[in-house]
Amino acid sequence: MKTFMDEDFLLNSATAKQLYHDGVENIPIIDYHCHVSPKEIYEDKHFDNITQVWLSGDHYKWRIMRSNGIDEKYITGDATDREKFQKFAETLPKAIGNPMYHWCHLELKKYFGYTGVLNGDTAEEVWQLTLSKLQKQDMGVRGLIKRSNVEFIGTTDDPIDSLEWHKKIAEDNTIDTVVAPSFRPDKALNIEKEGWLEYIVQLSIASKTKIDSLESLQRALVKRMRYFHENGCKVSDHGLDKMVYIYEDSQVVEKIFNKGLEGKEITSNEAEIYKTFLLIFCAKEYKKLGWVMQLHYNCMRNPNSKMFKVLGPDTGFDCIGPHNGSANLAKLLDALYSTDSLPKTIIYSLDSSDNGFIDTLIGAFQGIEVPGKIQHGSAWWFNDNKQGMIDQLTSLANLGLLGNFVGMLTDSRSFLSYTRHEYFRRILCGLVGEWIENGEYPADMENAKNIVKDISYYNAKRYFKL
Amino acid sequence: MKTFMDEDFLLNSATAKQLYHDGVENIPIIDYHCHVSPKEIYEDKHFDNITQVWLSGDHYKWRIMRSNGIDEKYITGDATDREKFQKFAETLPKAIGNPMYHWCHLELKKYFGYTGVLNGDTAEEVWQLTLSKLQKQDMGVRGLIKRSNVEFIGTTDDPIDSLEWHKKIAEDNTIDTVVAPSFRPDKALNIEKEGWLEYIVQLSIASKTKIDSLESLQRALVKRMRYFHENGCKVSDHGLDKMVYIYEDSQVVEKIFNKGLEGKEITSNEAEIYKTFLLIFCAKEYKKLGWVMQLHYNCMRNPNSKMFKVLGPDTGFDCIGPHNGSANLAKLLDALYSTDSLPKTIIYSLDSSDNGFIDTLIGAFQGIEVPGKIQHGSAWWFNDNKQGMIDQLTSLANLGLLGNFVGMLTDSRSFLSYTRHEYFRRILCGLVGEWIENGEYPADMENAKNIVKDISYYNAKRYFKL
Amino acid sequence: MKTFMDEDFLLNSATAKQLYHDGVENIPIIDYHCHVSPKEIYEDKHFDNITQVWLSGDHYKWRIMRSNGIDEKYITGDATDREKFQKFAETLPKAIGNPMYHWCHLELKKYFGYTGVLNGDTAEEVWQLTLSKLQKQDMGVRGLIKRSNVEFIGTTDDPIDSLEWHKKIAEDNTIDTVVAPSFRPDKALNIEKEGWLEYIVQLSIASKTKIDSLESLQRALVKRMRYFHENGCKVSDHGLDKMVYIYEDSQVVEKIFNKGLEGKEITSNEAEIYKTFLLIFCAKEYKKLGWVMQLHYNCMRNPNSKMFKVLGPDTGFDCIGPHNGSANLAKLLDALYSTDSLPKTIIYSLDSSDNGFIDTLIGAFQGIEVPGKIQHGSAWWFNDNKQGMIDQLTSLANLGLLGNFVGMLTDSRSFLSYTRHEYFRRILCGLVGEWIENGEYPADMENAKNIVKDISYYNAKRYFKL
Repeated sequence: MKTFMDEDFLLNSATAKQLYHDGVENIPIIDYHCHVSPKEIYEDKHFDNITQVWLSGDHYKWRIMRSNGIDEKYITGDATDREKFQKFAETLPKAIGNPMYHWCHLELKKYFGYTGVLNGDTAEEVWQLTLSKLQKQDMGVRGLIKRSNVEFIGTTDDPIDSLEWHKKIAEDNTIDTVVAPSFRPDKALNIEKEGWLEYIVQLSIASKTKIDSLESLQRALVKRMRYFHENGCKVSDHGLDKMVYIYEDSQVVEKIFNKGLEGKEITSNEAEIYKTFLLIFCAKEYKKLGWVMQLHYNCMRNPNSKMFKVLGPDTGFDCIGPHNGSANLAKLLDALYSTDSLPKTIIYSLDSSDNGFIDTLIGAFQGIEVPGKIQHGSAWWFNDNKQGMIDQLTSLANLGLLGNFVGMLTDSRSFLSYTRHEYFRRILCGLVGEWIENGEYPADMENAKNIVKDISYYNAKRYFKL
Repeated sequence: MKTFMDEDFLLNSATAKQLYHDGVENIPIIDYHCHVSPKEIYEDKHFDNITQVWLSGDHYKWRIMRSNGIDEKYITGDATDREKFQKFAETLPKAIGNPMYHWCHLELKKYFGYTGVLNGDTAEEVWQLTLSKLQKQDMGVRGLIKRSNVEFIGTTDDPIDSLEWHKKIAEDNTIDTVVAPSFRPDKALNIEKEGWLEYIVQLSIASKTKIDSLESLQRALVKRMRYFHENGCKVSDHGLDKMVYIYEDSQVVEKIFNKGLEGKEITSNEAEIYKTFLLIFCAKEYKKLGWVMQLHYNCMRNPNSKMFKVLGPDTGFDCIGPHNGSANLAKLLDALYSTDSLPKTIIYSLDSSDNGFIDTLIGAFQGIEVPGKIQHGSAWWFNDNKQGMIDQLTSLANLGLLGNFVGMLTDSRSFLSYTRHEYFRRILCGLVGEWIENGEYPADMENAKNIVKDISYYNAKRYFKL
Repeated sequence: MKTFMDEDFLLNSATAKQLYHDGVENIPIIDYHCHVSPKEIYEDKHFDNITQVWLSGDHYKWRIMRSNGIDEKYITGDATDREKFQKFAETLPKAIGNPMYHWCHLELKKYFGYTGVLNGDTAEEVWQLTLSKLQKQDMGVRGLIKRSNVEFIGTTDDPIDSLEWHKKIAEDNTIDTVVAPSFRPDKALNIEKEGWLEYIVQLSIASKTKIDSLESLQRALVKRMRYFHENGCKVSDHGLDKMVYIYEDSQVVEKIFNKGLEGKEITSNEAEIYKTFLLIFCAKEYKKLGWVMQLHYNCMRNPNSKMFKVLGPDTGFDCIGPHNGSANLAKLLDALYSTDSLPKTIIYSLDSSDNGFIDTLIGAFQGIEVPGKIQHGSAWWFNDNKQGMIDQLTSLANLGLLGNFVGMLTDSRSFLSYTRHEYFRRILCGLVGEWIENGEYPADMENAKNIVKDISYYNAKRYFKL
């Protein structure tokens, strides 16, 4: 029996151990897609206690607490931090087989040196240990990033963002990590949602462009893209709960846009037309800038309308979307490829039964700019667990070129989540090690180490031109 | 090499063996959803021979016989019981990898002490052995239940059922097992199907309520729910081949209901509206009664119309339904949650590619009444096999709290099927054992044993308040 | 650690080794569905170099080269054969986990005696070795087939094909392998596609039947079926990107057919009606002839319209189709079964999430003509890899009778692809061996060997009446 989560965690063969410990354990991290706050980086935010780190904003944890029948008071409510931590600690043992169990213990070990097991009984000892550690100078955000050996952080930012904190970070010689913004214009695209009109006003202001026509909206977006580009942006991101594709020419879209400006209700068909048009427009601009376009789809947002009214979005109530969108995604790529305007693209679906579709689709739209120009992104969100990662890696290996994969990202709001790169690397080395041990791939360890190193770091470095 | 199906069957590690033999092997069974006959329990039915037990009503077995090219004469036709058994025995070796292979040998071993292998050559010896054993007094239905250590049986019953046999069982001090009815009002909901109008008449009689309006139908159903409740019912069940959700107010539904009463044809859209309304209505009542609502969906019933005419429903011709229904299921839960009327709910889809969706959806609708209020039911029907159970358990573990899972049910018509609980427990212990052996969960055996015991028995006991 | 792809490749237990080496390693191959050229067989085509064999027509290889960012010049363009081979060899190491990696090394070993590893550095040595070997007399197409122990080859042929080469092969006593045509009338069914009208003219000529009505089209097809039948055809094949079923009577279909004849545009609804009608018609004729009907569906063809214009179809740009078609497939089988006209049928979907659906559907339409009359075809195209085959075998085992499976086919254009049967047999023996080693199936090796031999060869021999 292996020891619980020791140094060879998830490394089930001698080859896997060699690949990990001699290959990827200590190479830097490129976290090209996450949701951390650049302000907190610049200000080197420190945390009062483990609840502040773990439970103040992590909807994964809120979700499993709710699944344990815990009252919202102890989740997002007014219970004390110590009480909340207790409830979480009592829940954790039931999360057997859940990545949360591993993430928590990886974080406790790496950042706090705790090698025990967290549960209701040990909650107090963990609380005290983390309390004392968090007071140390090097346990602020900057210290956590440094200790995690993070070379690049790609935050997720709205086009109207001033990028004030990114600039300050860039000017600060004491920060070695590059912190670049990513361009996520979802609010400009969501014409059917509440708040779109107000957003257009804000975008007018941010871009110093009077937005009163489709053309002026496009100009405003381009101005913001250039501004982001000047501030180091290399990546965009689109969250499309449902992948869209209804193409109409600009005159039709103009009318829909004008309806939106007039505050009229937009049908779902009109919204699709408008989004399709803007997606294509944005993609063409990304291509010109050499950016990478990320597409995230098949998410069912906020199915619980009552809790949405109480807590708002991103509070642990989303779920995997229905099986669809394949045809639209293919049409979007085709529209872009056929006009030589398909940028480097990374595709993520929340529905793992899309794995095979995506892995075959990307093979139909590659290009010569860079090996693996069109990518199937790492197992996303609900798939970001051992089985989900093995499934994504196996499908990509079967249907594409695993050797060109740009690998892991945290997609996280937390500065302790860099252990997810460790988790990914261990699983990757476990899988490749298994193939080699089974005689399915040559035991040329230099070559094999290069493959896992490429996937863990070098491919992303090349792909994003870092 | 392990011996064929010995005491350590499916237990591939020392930890798995310990969890099973010291943990769950001998704890009682709660079979909260099945299709056995309470009459047969009360009357302590005895069987003439193994064909009567195995082949008189088990469409799983009929199906694999048909897949072997066997004539219907030997399946549901007029061949002798011995002939039918021979044909089945000759088919079985080809069912390599099929749960049927394991179920049969588990049953032969547990109830008849047969440790050999059933095939065409051994059919005669098995026939003779089972023939002699079945004549014994303790090999009737009651003896089989007792030997299986079944604490609770939840049968599946129509609202018009008199529950005569449940009452008699309840009054019989010699029966230790609790046998409770479950409320399955499918016939009242299937307004578009033949026989609905006749059923409404029957329901009128059973409920002593003149059903001539939507309101009176609701009253009739509530009366039957109360009657079921008084007779120990704690669970309802809805079989929805296709998950529905089109909400309209009662005036619209009333018109559809009246069309039904007048014997007019109901469109599929109207049927969805009517079913949605009644589903919501029923769920609210279940909530008041503290019942658990079961939802079974994504089944394609009777695709072979010719054989349906010959043999009727539930004869081995159904199959996994098309990928859909996710959005409707989410809307149904939302409608109930937002009005504080979502009962404890267990969701089953016949399409295993829904696993991830269901496991994330349930996380969005939990409550504080009980840990794991909304459940993803155990691998159902065609998924009720080793791989299907591992997939369901792994998905639930990854996306929810496996520790709160209410576990296995037989869903069976046979009194020998209790070995499926053994099968489930072995697979569960194998999986948890593997995690522990791999260092993915702490080797605290008391805690680990409690987890598998909870999933095998105690969670259901708490959940159903038994 | 196992040696890279040695004689025990994929055989991870003593039982697996025994099943393979003593059971199926040396029994003949029935390749009942492929795309090789009968002309090349008759003419015993020889190849100039390994690029001619491997890269002149294999879109799997083109696809992975594109995924490596290689310019089309080196794929389908005017680079030299040596240059193309170099680019491929440099790509191959990145295909870790891809069946291509195994196929290439199996082929190099079996046909060229090369036991090294192909990559950029060894490309020259492999080029030279294969160059010299390919000059040998027995390295032509006939030699490759003989060495592969192929007993039966089922090519894929258009109804208008003269079958000239099949006849010549049949008359040639020096060819031991039976080479039979298969009937694939896709062009006659694709009324909505360009070229249909021209095709109807060609079919008129080939069938010596003036096609000016639906009835005359049917007559023409029947004449060609009879002609194929006389020339040894036993199998048909339909490639239906999307499974169709809209039934209308012949008068409606006649109108659609006439629109087609007049060169008018056909709506997608009309195309479905027309295809449904012809599918049913063809199936009934196949049934009369005792043929096997193959149905391939859920493929998204040519999503990249730009490359389609440049390179045409079947050049490595297709992908897995969207999740659908289940309901239509069920209706088609029902329509045929209910009129006693369902032929032996093999169903393949490109979407592996259909596995469960197909495995349950076939169970609802079996017949007594032959065990396993309705089959779930071997893992097709993008699923034709280790994981895809394990998934198909496991699903079929769980839901049907694995013992009756007719097994593997290459579906290939290459005469080196017979190693894919070896690949399949190794995976099959690995899986069955694992079950036996785990005590999940009896260790009766004679019985177990018979099962893997049946699946590898004898079931197909019986099923196709060879």
